[in-house]
Amino acid sequence: MDGRIGDISTPGRLAEPDEGVGLDELALAARNHGLPLEALRYDLTPAGLHYVLVHYDIPAAEADDWQLTVSGLVRTPLTLDMRRLRSLPAVTHRVTMECAGNGRARLQPRPVSQPWLVEAVGTAEWTGVPLRTLLAGAGVEPDAVEAVFTGADHGVERGIEQDYQRSLPLSSALGEDPEVLVAYEMNGLPLPPQHGYPLRLIVPGWYGMAHVKWLRDITLTDTAFTGFQQAVAYRLRQSPDDPGEPVERIAPRALMIPPGFPDFMSRTRVVRPGEVPLEGRAWSGHAPVTRVEVSTDDDGSWSEAAIDPPDGHGWAWRRWRAAWSATPGSHVLSVRATDADGRTQPLTQPWNRGGFANNLVQQISVLCLESD
Amino acid sequence: MDGRIGDISTPGRLAEPDEGVGLDELALAARNHGLPLEALRYDLTPAGLHYVLVHYDIPAAEADDWQLTVSGLVRTPLTLDMRRLRSLPAVTHRVTMECAGNGRARLQPRPVSQPWLVEAVGTAEWTGVPLRTLLAGAGVEPDAVEAVFTGADHGVERGIEQDYQRSLPLSSALGEDPEVLVAYEMNGLPLPPQHGYPLRLIVPGWYGMAHVKWLRDITLTDTAFTGFQQAVAYRLRQSPDDPGEPVERIAPRALMIPPGFPDFMSRTRVVRPGEVPLEGRAWSGHAPVTRVEVSTDDDGSWSEAAIDPPDGHGWAWRRWRAAWSATPGSHVLSVRATDADGRTQPLTQPWNRGGFANNLVQQISVLCLESD
Repeated sequence: MDGRIGDISTPGRLAEPDEGVGLDELALAARNHGLPLEALRYDLTPAGLHYVLVHYDIPAAEADDWQLTVSGLVRTPLTLDMRRLRSLPAVTHRVTMECAGNGRARLQPRPVSQPWLVEAVGTAEWTGVPLRTLLAGAGVEPDAVEAVFTGADHGVERGIEQDYQRSLPLSSALGEDPEVLVAYEMNGLPLPPQHGYPLRLIVPGWYGMAHVKWLRDITLTDTAFTGFQQAVAYRLRQSPDDPGEPVERIAPRALMIPPGFPDFMSRTRVVRPGEVPLEGRAWSGHAPVTRVEVSTDDDGSWSEAAIDPPDGHGWAWRRWRAAWSATPGSHVLSVRATDADGRTQPLTQPWNRGGFANNLVQQISVLCLESD
Repeated sequence: MDGRIGDISTPGRLAEPDEGVGLDELALAARNHGLPLEALRYDLTPAGLHYVLVHYDIPAAEADDWQLTVSGLVRTPLTLDMRRLRSLPAVTHRVTMECAGNGRARLQPRPVSQPWLVEAVGTAEWTGVPLRTLLAGAGVEPDAVEAVFTGADHGVERGIEQDYQRSLPLSSALGEDPEVLVAYEMNGLPLPPQHGYPLRLIVPGWYGMAHVKWLRDITLTDTAFTGFQQAVAYRLRQSPDDPGEPVERIAPRALMIPPGFPDFMSRTRVVRPGEVPLEGRAWSGHAPVTRVEVSTDDDGSWSEAAIDPPDGHGWAWRRWRAAWSATPGSHVLSVRATDADGRTQPLTQPWNRGGFANNLVQQISVLCLESD
């Protein structure tokens, strides 16, 4: 039977040089979607514009009969319905979330998977119960080291049939800042189906794979979780037999709202000569972004952008602004972020076999027309 | 200057044999998205799951300062703000909308454009003012033959800088069934930005290109509109110099919710032996769907599916159901719709240079495992 599943579920691979995006990658790109970059204009990403990545299918779920269990190494196992969860003290956190595979499709060689270019990001306000409140209620046994989170989405991946599962070290699960949430609202409304309705995990500062959707169980364990999404996928590897490092927090990135207007097919931007306001957002899952620089000449020169002052949302993106005097001809615009830990964005691709945590600087091609 | 724009905005083309999907097509696939097919389970498609195609950028728009003008061959030109529009008698229509380019990416040769596989569809309830109410208020002059609709989205396409514009013959614009709407709500909430906030046209039964988003002007004319989206794009052509036929109403199509669960990368479905319920939706922009047939053996045999009875929503999809006794091995599932006009879905591709109105039957690959 394994061999049969192996026929339709094959190991990860790299595309051949000049191999175009295949229909398998396209099937993922057609169901999942990124943030149209002009939507960087919104502080909070409206419904349907926040990036979505669903590994398997969106489960059919009803809040009325949903149950979350908390089990394993706890003194009092819990079974909580949505009504009980909504009765507990709630908090709201504004969080910028990014897919760990963002930018993968521009890598050479290209890891064959969900083919993101640069747009797999979004920012929302998530409301729910702090995970540490639930764990305190259950009473974590002293020998617990991890919490394992199980979603209701079920599928096969690289030959392994599985429910989607990820874990967090207990120190992260119980942390105060970032504070992990069991969330039931996104921007003040019940979660949309594709974002985990009725319940999902929110782990501010971590890539999207940690924010388990359709959350139905939390199990405390005394060993490190070795499930597929932890030990096989989402690791930074240079070769197939490299055990790799785990993908965790979001590397710094700045994105620019593409200025002017686009050509439909090439997405090249068109502007007219003169002052062109540049604007975008920057974020890091490690530390606050402290510098954003813009390059408009593709000549290695960078100038400082203005960053909006801190607004109390430490795990969400910050707006930046700059100005550009456009002159007729072709231009390449770039932007890069640096955080308070000194992490920044590379100008050459940071490559690994999964295409994870790749924060290569964005490049936008712009044609400035002659004056009218 | 045209020559310069011509460098970044090139004529439509067909992909070479075996040419993979390019980064230009992928950039469209990453920003736009289809309906994840499991979302066929919802009568009304939730926010963010309805297909979206935006030609240029989503405009920055505020309902508070939005104005719709009605001008040209009318006795009384109108300028209407949102408050005025909301004060007029409103109606709500449930409408299934499909992109005219749905299925394009599976064509051979492949027209290079937004690369839909089969998922560019969705159903919503749209609330707004009937267009004929507005036109009656303005008073259409007797020599008017078309209404031209202008959206706020601006870009370049195939070398032509333009606002997105489409027209309707006056008979369609004033029709009672289907009744064209100037809509400001989708499923009971203000339109999301990507669906035309604050105002869009809804033309039940027509492909998506007719439903002009971010609607800001309606002009009555005494000649047929020859703008880009009417006379150049959205025509059924066999060769570049063929004037072609216009793309208008939605050809019949049925889609199936893929049964079982998927492999992440291949999207092949996995089921276990035994009875597998099959379910999906079917629609046509010409006439009610009267027959849905399912094929589970890829051997040319078809069996009738049960269709839900009419529910009064004549321009929306209808649910169908069938059952399948799955046996171990590989299977290809297909479904096809036939409408009351006798139109049905072809088993070989209906090809044209734009890849429009292609309603080739869906095929779903399923692996049925041996019993546990």
